[in-house]
Amino acid sequence: MKILPGPASKELGEKIAELLGVEAVPVFFKVFPDGESYVRIEGAVEGEKAVIVQTTSPPQDIRIVQLALIADAAKRKNARKVVAVVPYLAYARQDKAFLQGEAVSIEAIARMLKAAGVDSLITVNVHEKKVLEKFPFPAKSLSAIPLLAEYFRQKGFEEAFALAPDKGAINIAEEAAKVLGGECGYLEKRRDRYTGHVTVEKKEFNVKDKTVIIFDDIISTGGTIVAAAKILHELGAAKIYAACVHPLLVGEAEKRIREAEVAEIVGTDSIPSQVSKVSLAPLIAKALKELKSG
Amino acid sequence: MKILPGPASKELGEKIAELLGVEAVPVFFKVFPDGESYVRIEGAVEGEKAVIVQTTSPPQDIRIVQLALIADAAKRKNARKVVAVVPYLAYARQDKAFLQGEAVSIEAIARMLKAAGVDSLITVNVHEKKVLEKFPFPAKSLSAIPLLAEYFRQKGFEEAFALAPDKGAINIAEEAAKVLGGECGYLEKRRDRYTGHVTVEKKEFNVKDKTVIIFDDIISTGGTIVAAAKILHELGAAKIYAACVHPLLVGEAEKRIREAEVAEIVGTDSIPSQVSKVSLAPLIAKALKELKSG
Repeated sequence: MKILPGPASKELGEKIAELLGVEAVPVFFKVFPDGESYVRIEGAVEGEKAVIVQTTSPPQDIRIVQLALIADAAKRKNARKVVAVVPYLAYARQDKAFLQGEAVSIEAIARMLKAAGVDSLITVNVHEKKVLEKFPFPAKSLSAIPLLAEYFRQKGFEEAFALAPDKGAINIAEEAAKVLGGECGYLEKRRDRYTGHVTVEKKEFNVKDKTVIIFDDIISTGGTIVAAAKILHELGAAKIYAACVHPLLVGEAEKRIREAEVAEIVGTDSIPSQVSKVSLAPLIAKALKELKSG
Repeated sequence: MKILPGPASKELGEKIAELLGVEAVPVFFKVFPDGESYVRIEGAVEGEKAVIVQTTSPPQDIRIVQLALIADAAKRKNARKVVAVVPYLAYARQDKAFLQGEAVSIEAIARMLKAAGVDSLITVNVHEKKVLEKFPFPAKSLSAIPLLAEYFRQKGFEEAFALAPDKGAINIAEEAAKVLGGECGYLEKRRDRYTGHVTVEKKEFNVKDKTVIIFDDIISTGGTIVAAAKILHELGAAKIYAACVHPLLVGEAEKRIREAEVAEIVGTDSIPSQVSKVSLAPLIAKALKELKSG
């Protein structure tokens, strides 16, 4: 097994290689003056499981194409298998045709990665796990929620209330509550498919004077967290934290969340950012170790 | 047959539909706040040959993904065949592994488009025609050189000297000379694969006091045209023009070329720009007409 750290996840890829004690093969990368990406694998991968580590956070399309080109190059260098580790998988939220005439973007992307040379895929907290069943290769989603909850537990936040800002994220809140040892609950979120506008309604639970950690897979514009924080403040929560696996933090998201009196935002290095306080390296290294021996 | 004008070639797609007298089905397009593309086909394509018109000039990767998503959506709407008309085909210059460990980008992209739903492809003046033979579907490259030469002929430039700035473009210069009725020739260009630096050497031909039109497939940074213009001035050319199919015109290219005393730059709408004075619509409509009856 050899690790190929892609340009979008160079540091994470190198960390994973170090934890596994395997070689990180450098991937030279440049952009031509017209904007085309160029990649070159600078080492041997012949006969090896070549593990490309490349997240697909913005600029998503550029990073998808880079990943595809590295997979093509690895196959040309006679890698035995090409494994794509894509910590943040772009387009995963377009996992069905919500309106007639739409693409199912994530399925198209998966087929394209296979065509480029990818033989299997590992991602982290994909938006809907069942989308992976439609991928044209074996695909697995790891959960970074225990790592995030552990971050808070070590800070002394045992028994904090784990809140899902959305019914779909309740399994995430439950997973976190197991590590923290406290209660969990969820809010109801509605998103208008045409305008994208988000509304949140409160549910029956008691957070008065409690520390609440909002757990979600992605923080994008922060609209969901801001709406949830507002309700939590109304319900008398003592202190509010926000944790996510994928800190997309589009535009002013971080500022908006802080202004909603959220004490701290914690994310992972699936998307390198200021709030990436938890590394996915141990989680991914463990999954690859099983693959290595298997 | 129905035409689906993609967001990158909306005007050209609509022109082609008009020339063919077939319906242009609107493709709704937006970008989510995080940068993901979204497409929706707003009309019926069931049982039809769905022709997506989408160039892949910069931002290339975004436009490639858009094209792929439209192809996926067309297949989901039960289009009988999906034809991709890609006037400017990105990554076509990376048509082999020049150095060990490189991707053959254009082959990877072609495989990816097929996986997304594309059944055949039409492009215009692809950099090397033979790359199309390796595509996983029927692919054809049309030549816009006669249209470009005709533009100059109609302006009274009969018997202008048609110059290829590069031995590889000599067939382009010959094609133009046939329409113009004058001579043609070529310069020798060398590009350093590591630095990208271009050098041009003169060949034996006589352009003294003549009008010279430099014909090339792509003008990117303009470095090749500027180097060619310098030599042509030294050789005593009376007036110099530059014509290309694909006016990429990266950065200051247009300014640099004008400063090299090139009187006019002419390109096509393969890449909509200020110099896109020649439309590809008639050329593409003609090719589609054959496909329609075939």
